[in-house]
Amino acid sequence: MRVVISIGGSVLAPDLDADRVAGHASAVESLVDEGCEVGTVVGGGGVAREYIRTARQLGANEVQLDQFGIDVTRLNARLLIAALDGLSAPSPAHDYEDAGEALRRNDVPVMGGVMPGQTTDAVAAALAEYVDADLLVYATSVDGVFSADPATDPEAEQYGRLTGAELVDLIAPMSRGAGASAPVDLLAAKLIERSKMRTIVIDGTDPERIETAVLHGEHTGTDVVPEGCDRDPDGWDR
Amino acid sequence: MRVVISIGGSVLAPDLDADRVAGHASAVESLVDEGCEVGTVVGGGGVAREYIRTARQLGANEVQLDQFGIDVTRLNARLLIAALDGLSAPSPAHDYEDAGEALRRNDVPVMGGVMPGQTTDAVAAALAEYVDADLLVYATSVDGVFSADPATDPEAEQYGRLTGAELVDLIAPMSRGAGASAPVDLLAAKLIERSKMRTIVIDGTDPERIETAVLHGEHTGTDVVPEGCDRDPDGWDR
Amino acid sequence: MRVVISIGGSVLAPDLDADRVAGHASAVESLVDEGCEVGTVVGGGGVAREYIRTARQLGANEVQLDQFGIDVTRLNARLLIAALDGLSAPSPAHDYEDAGEALRRNDVPVMGGVMPGQTTDAVAAALAEYVDADLLVYATSVDGVFSADPATDPEAEQYGRLTGAELVDLIAPMSRGAGASAPVDLLAAKLIERSKMRTIVIDGTDPERIETAVLHGEHTGTDVVPEGCDRDPDGWDR
Amino acid sequence: MRVVISIGGSVLAPDLDADRVAGHASAVESLVDEGCEVGTVVGGGGVAREYIRTARQLGANEVQLDQFGIDVTRLNARLLIAALDGLSAPSPAHDYEDAGEALRRNDVPVMGGVMPGQTTDAVAAALAEYVDADLLVYATSVDGVFSADPATDPEAEQYGRLTGAELVDLIAPMSRGAGASAPVDLLAAKLIERSKMRTIVIDGTDPERIETAVLHGEHTGTDVVPEGCDRDPDGWDR
Amino acid sequence: MRVVISIGGSVLAPDLDADRVAGHASAVESLVDEGCEVGTVVGGGGVAREYIRTARQLGANEVQLDQFGIDVTRLNARLLIAALDGLSAPSPAHDYEDAGEALRRNDVPVMGGVMPGQTTDAVAAALAEYVDADLLVYATSVDGVFSADPATDPEAEQYGRLTGAELVDLIAPMSRGAGASAPVDLLAAKLIERSKMRTIVIDGTDPERIETAVLHGEHTGTDVVPEGCDRDPDGWDR
Amino acid sequence: MRVVISIGGSVLAPDLDADRVAGHASAVESLVDEGCEVGTVVGGGGVAREYIRTARQLGANEVQLDQFGIDVTRLNARLLIAALDGLSAPSPAHDYEDAGEALRRNDVPVMGGVMPGQTTDAVAAALAEYVDADLLVYATSVDGVFSADPATDPEAEQYGRLTGAELVDLIAPMSRGAGASAPVDLLAAKLIERSKMRTIVIDGTDPERIETAVLHGEHTGTDVVPEGCDRDPDGWDR
Repeated sequence: MRVVISIGGSVLAPDLDADRVAGHASAVESLVDEGCEVGTVVGGGGVAREYIRTARQLGANEVQLDQFGIDVTRLNARLLIAALDGLSAPSPAHDYEDAGEALRRNDVPVMGGVMPGQTTDAVAAALAEYVDADLLVYATSVDGVFSADPATDPEAEQYGRLTGAELVDLIAPMSRGAGASAPVDLLAAKLIERSKMRTIVIDGTDPERIETAVLHGEHTGTDVVPEGCDRDPDGWDR
Repeated sequence: MRVVISIGGSVLAPDLDADRVAGHASAVESLVDEGCEVGTVVGGGGVAREYIRTARQLGANEVQLDQFGIDVTRLNARLLIAALDGLSAPSPAHDYEDAGEALRRNDVPVMGGVMPGQTTDAVAAALAEYVDADLLVYATSVDGVFSADPATDPEAEQYGRLTGAELVDLIAPMSRGAGASAPVDLLAAKLIERSKMRTIVIDGTDPERIETAVLHGEHTGTDVVPEGCDRDPDGWDR
Repeated sequence: MRVVISIGGSVLAPDLDADRVAGHASAVESLVDEGCEVGTVVGGGGVAREYIRTARQLGANEVQLDQFGIDVTRLNARLLIAALDGLSAPSPAHDYEDAGEALRRNDVPVMGGVMPGQTTDAVAAALAEYVDADLLVYATSVDGVFSADPATDPEAEQYGRLTGAELVDLIAPMSRGAGASAPVDLLAAKLIERSKMRTIVIDGTDPERIETAVLHGEHTGTDVVPEGCDRDPDGWDR
Repeated sequence: MRVVISIGGSVLAPDLDADRVAGHASAVESLVDEGCEVGTVVGGGGVAREYIRTARQLGANEVQLDQFGIDVTRLNARLLIAALDGLSAPSPAHDYEDAGEALRRNDVPVMGGVMPGQTTDAVAAALAEYVDADLLVYATSVDGVFSADPATDPEAEQYGRLTGAELVDLIAPMSRGAGASAPVDLLAAKLIERSKMRTIVIDGTDPERIETAVLHGEHTGTDVVPEGCDRDPDGWDR
Repeated sequence: MRVVISIGGSVLAPDLDADRVAGHASAVESLVDEGCEVGTVVGGGGVAREYIRTARQLGANEVQLDQFGIDVTRLNARLLIAALDGLSAPSPAHDYEDAGEALRRNDVPVMGGVMPGQTTDAVAAALAEYVDADLLVYATSVDGVFSADPATDPEAEQYGRLTGAELVDLIAPMSRGAGASAPVDLLAAKLIERSKMRTIVIDGTDPERIETAVLHGEHTGTDVVPEGCDRDPDGWDR
Repeated sequence: MRVVISIGGSVLAPDLDADRVAGHASAVESLVDEGCEVGTVVGGGGVAREYIRTARQLGANEVQLDQFGIDVTRLNARLLIAALDGLSAPSPAHDYEDAGEALRRNDVPVMGGVMPGQTTDAVAAALAEYVDADLLVYATSVDGVFSADPATDPEAEQYGRLTGAELVDLIAPMSRGAGASAPVDLLAAKLIERSKMRTIVIDGTDPERIETAVLHGEHTGTDVVPEGCDRDPDGWDR
């Protein structure tokens, strides 16, 4: 099975902790040991937030802020690379062709952001599309897609299963407004819909959950099964 | 006034015609002569469609198809560069920093696409944001934003003025489904909303319309005036 | 056997047709299956001609026109890459070292043009020289080297076998003047002579002819056997 | 006067604070207003330390750790660029030629680290040498070169004036051993000696001190006046 | 007047001599002082020959040998850059667009070779074509184009004036065979013919001759006046 | 065993001699045949000295002179690559990640210099550190580290064994002053100390000595055994 895992910044690097990064590297290694081809995309986390906050105070515009975010995601990618200990190429892939080429050579590509205007959510969706992945996993700090932010709204209900179109419809309004925090951004949702990519959105703070979700399809988050995506990934015995 | 003009592929290069390209270059030159700082982003048009159609038949995935599109937009950018005859740097800018640097040196940056997953619509919005433009112009083949595709739906009504949030709300559903053709794509709309960028969407097949719209704010298309964007560009005496 | 195949633009892409590209990819795959190491160089074809014509009308100089041609050859290279479905690296090689490195890793390098002033004919000859190929094949729209353009001159006679020096002597005057169309350009001929490279020039519109010519040396075109090139490629039992 | 200012990580970014960065940008702007040509090199600070600590725990080697440091210095360079608001090129210079080219165009080059094995101290010395600066300023958290670490050793004595050779002799042993912290690293000292570069080492936490030191040569730190460096920079009236 | 000067390796660097390089830099500076826009292309000379000889003995193929030559021409370009003392960009231009961009910014571009298969003769012709030069000067070790090698054949006759087509016809046979040494290579001749570029071939060992030839058209070498090139460069009062 | 070999310019290329380069390539090949993973770094030698002398006379500064040196080391790297005949990647590695990636793919990386301010001695130490080598060999023209220059001082005594700290202490003063010529430069010594890298400094003019030293640890030069480097490389039976 070929899988792309998006490890959100809030999951991999809310602050810098070697054990946390090592745990995620370990999950990737287990998946590779199980015969999976794995591509990874990592987010920015706390350091990105700090740089963006500071740069915004200095008058940087949104595109420049995106560039700060991208640079930090690549630092985080280097942390994961260090923890993967030779399983990946020595530096983060800067575009999809580099990442795809790494996968062809049995390396684990590690990407961060690639270009202002695109989040790492979208990068993960595009990478999954590019390498024709069987599965795309969003390991976030929230266990799936909810009708509202479960951290603040006790009435928030989780969606167990969505089509790509439903995902886009849910995310579009959610991605605007004050406290709103969509677990996956709108461009990513559009790419998932366009590529008919089997996708799961789960709480990835415990890396073992990612392993279980990838290997067996077992998780407590949200399944996104776009129309036209007509089967489970090979090996899932559900 | 600093302006970014997105010249859609259907406007600049439905087929390859030197006069058409020269007309658009001439409009840019006039704007520069009038003291405007101009950045341009061009689309793919007929050749892009041909390559994408062929590559899709050969089994290329969506990200690879995007790359074909990007390469063609850069060829079209070279056509515009040739027609600008020394007003621009000799090759298309491949990222926002290159384009911004060109503008700092009083050149007209010409961009095509930059990265799979982003249309040239979105590139134009990001460039406008990056260079802190006073105005963003989408020169398309349809004169503004309509409630439906005016080519097929006689009931389609044009919106004269929208906020950025309204634009996003309109585009989101429009960007899905069979015959749907939003004049500006959803990521671009999100960037316009985020940057509070004064934007107009007009029929740009006649380059003089672009000139008039930029210099005087006069046009028959749609004004997008995001909340927080509190004034007309300098020089408009409306 | 190691072979470099130059697939002319008029052969691969007179217009954009997926079946035609797929046919050539299929021939390359067969050769690889037969144990050949294959490098390919593709030309510009109809789209290149269109861009060059348009850019010339816009006042572009010859070097700029060459650059348009190069960019289109790389788009065509991407089509062949898409059709090769993983047999090649994901993007066209931009210089000989990249292409040679691909071959070392058992990929099929696909090149287009590399630099203004050099045709893809010359690129193919240089690539053959660089990777120390056993055979260089020009798959063109004319079946070999003729004393005149066979399309317009009924007296045109085909040369069955030439030395490198004879090829240069024939091409030099041919490459000048109105209707003249040498099947291989002069720089390529010089490189063939310099490297003493076994070369065949054949009608390549039917990809199976290329296969047969490579595997068995059987064809109805022209053999160029430079002095000092003292034997047939291995495997030819002629 | 042409000056290169090394703003240490502990000075510019012990933690991320927009006001601190803005203060240093303001000092650079004042110097430019006074007619100085200014090049800057910034260090890594607290974020670099965090990444290096984490990566070391993950088993990264020293060269990889250097690369983390370099990436963070470039993020800090982007902060200074944002604060310089158009006085500098839009992205950090990655080598001396880029930086020198920026200076030729009246931009303020901003560099971080360039290559593992070289600190930003050494980068600053090399940049000063490359652009033939009149003065090199190390703005550090300690006010000059001391016989021991003044933070821990009450007997530490400051050197008011040193030759380049004396600086090297002092730094060489200092750069080894537990608590040792030379204000300038050994490679930088060697470059200062080799280029006979007029250098001052000062406490740069207050950016105004840097201004005063550059414009008038007035400071309370250490002057390094290499043999063969026979005069004060123009404009100093001491 | 815009002029491209090809300074052959045998002229600039038969061996490495600072005075010789300084003399050529001085000629370029004089031309710039006289209001000329100057682009330069330099050859390989003695060091290139040494590396090529050594690499050939080690089994390098012709394309690899070309790469050695290119690398040495770029070292020689750096020598000329050092001697031009700020008149040029700090590093050699690697393609025509870089060189053209330098000229737009009133710098003197300095190029060496660009790609295997192309001599610096051809690079100079292509650069002249690209920047639309008024004049192309080949400063070689022989004073013009001769019917045979004047160093070995006392009957060799100099051509005073040639058309581009005549140049190609002369060079084609000359560029083959043992002792043959055409003053300009065949690809360059073809480019001169194609671009209808006013060209002179002169003995450039004394840099003052280059100056005189450029400023006044006075020289004792060969004028190549392609058909369609209908006038002398501006400023020549012949 | 993984080994990095620094082949000094005075050893590989005092002048350009194919046999000498072939001899060193042959030693590398033997080591690979014996199962070693080998990385190489080569110096500049006579040609570098010539370019640096000439450029200095033309007024180039030290950083520019370093760049000349780097370019020549890369030419020498190409010679070694040609002689290695397919054992290495086709072009010199320009940074540690490229070199490390080559090693991962079972190629022999060949580096020259990487950045002004760093000698190839330091590059070799950093590469050894980066790839976590078991052994670093300096093949120089002097057989180890001496108390003074053995070529001029008959009292010069060789050190048989040094710690990293001792090496730094010895080199620091040695690297200054007229005739001084440390066999390894100070930055390299610092990197050796920092990485606790097992290092030997030997006379490498006869390539067989390098082989013997690597395979068996037998040599007549100097062993540098940093504190914390607690064992001989595997396979040494001393």
